[in-house]
Amino acid sequence: MEKLKSLQRLEEGLAKLPGVGKKSAERMAYSMLNFSDEDLLEISESIKELKANIRFCKTCGMISEEDECEICKDSSRDESLLMVVSYPKDVISIEKSGTYNGRYHVLNGEISLSKGIHIENLNLPALYERLSENKITEVILATNPTIDGETTALYIAKAIEKYNVNVTRLAYGLQMGGNLEYVDPLTLSKALEGRHKL
Amino acid sequence: MEKLKSLQRLEEGLAKLPGVGKKSAERMAYSMLNFSDEDLLEISESIKELKANIRFCKTCGMISEEDECEICKDSSRDESLLMVVSYPKDVISIEKSGTYNGRYHVLNGEISLSKGIHIENLNLPALYERLSENKITEVILATNPTIDGETTALYIAKAIEKYNVNVTRLAYGLQMGGNLEYVDPLTLSKALEGRHKL
Repeated sequence: MEKLKSLQRLEEGLAKLPGVGKKSAERMAYSMLNFSDEDLLEISESIKELKANIRFCKTCGMISEEDECEICKDSSRDESLLMVVSYPKDVISIEKSGTYNGRYHVLNGEISLSKGIHIENLNLPALYERLSENKITEVILATNPTIDGETTALYIAKAIEKYNVNVTRLAYGLQMGGNLEYVDPLTLSKALEGRHKL
Repeated sequence: MEKLKSLQRLEEGLAKLPGVGKKSAERMAYSMLNFSDEDLLEISESIKELKANIRFCKTCGMISEEDECEICKDSSRDESLLMVVSYPKDVISIEKSGTYNGRYHVLNGEISLSKGIHIENLNLPALYERLSENKITEVILATNPTIDGETTALYIAKAIEKYNVNVTRLAYGLQMGGNLEYVDPLTLSKALEGRHKL
C-alpha cells in the first residue's frame, strides 16, 4: 500500500529536525491528521514566519528582534569580559546559569570538516573589530566540548593572539562529547569558575 | 533574558507533537533557525496542506486521496473477512506484515474516558451497514491491546452480536500496553494466526 503523498511530504520535512528519525516523523505526521485546522495553520504560520522577525545583532551576532540585542544594549554588563559561543541557544544556557555578567560573541557555527563549515563561515570579523577597540581584557572561549568546538576554540585562540587579551576556555566540568545546551546550571557555574588560560 | 516571540510561538506548536517535550521543542525550534528559507517554506506548506488532499474512504474510513481507498477498490481482496482497527496507521502496519488479504474498517478513534471519546465518535454506523449486507463472515477486532482498545473491542463485539458473524480478536502475541504501530511484522503474523473467538 502506497503512502499518501501529503503524509510523505510532511514526514520528509519533519525528519530534518534534530532527533527525529523516519519512524518518529511518521508517527508525528499521522498524529497531525488529528490536529484541528486551527492548530495546523498556527504551526504552519509559525514556521513560515520564524525568521521574518529575527535578525542577528550587529555587534555580537546573537539572534534578536532588533538591530542590537538586549545584552549588547545593557550598559550594566562588564565590557571587559567577552564570552565566545557557537550558537544563540548557548547564550540562553549561560544566562540561565546566572553566573556571568560580561558580554557575548556568537559565532553562529563551528568549524566542521564533515559539514563543510569553514572559518570564513563564522562571525569572526566582528570579533576582531571588537577586540581592536581595546576594551576587552579577557576572551572566554565557550564553544562546545566536541571535536568541532575544540577545533574552533584552538583556531580562535591562535587568531586573536595579537590582541593582547587573556584567552581562557571553560573548564572541563563539561562532559566531553556533550552539548552545551543540555548542561545543568550548576555544572555550567563550575565550568566558568575553573576556566583556564589557553 | 526573554525568549524571542517567534521562537516561543514555534516551540508551543512543536510541543503538541507526540514525544516532543518542552526541551525537544526548544532544540527543534533553534535548529530551524539554521534551515534554509526554502526548507522552512516547504515544511510550512506541507503542514498547511496536510489535510487538503486527504479525505476518509466512504466505505471503510481509511485516509485516502480519493473517495474510496485503494484497498476497498481492490476486488482481489477477500470480502468475507473484515478487520476493525482504530487508526489509519494501523492499516499500514498490518499491510506491511503481508499476512492479511481481507478488508478493513477504520474506527478513527477508540473509546476513551480520559480523552472524552465516546462510542458516537467512532466510525460505527458504516460498519453496521457493511455487516447488514451479509457478505462478511468474520470480523477481526484489531484495536490496540490497551485499556481503551480493549474497551472498544468489547463494546463492538456486543454491538454486532446480532449480525451472525464470527467475531475474533487478535491473539495476545501483542504486548499489553503497547501500540499496534510499533509491533514488528513477525509478531503481527503470530497474532493474526492465533486469533480467538470472542
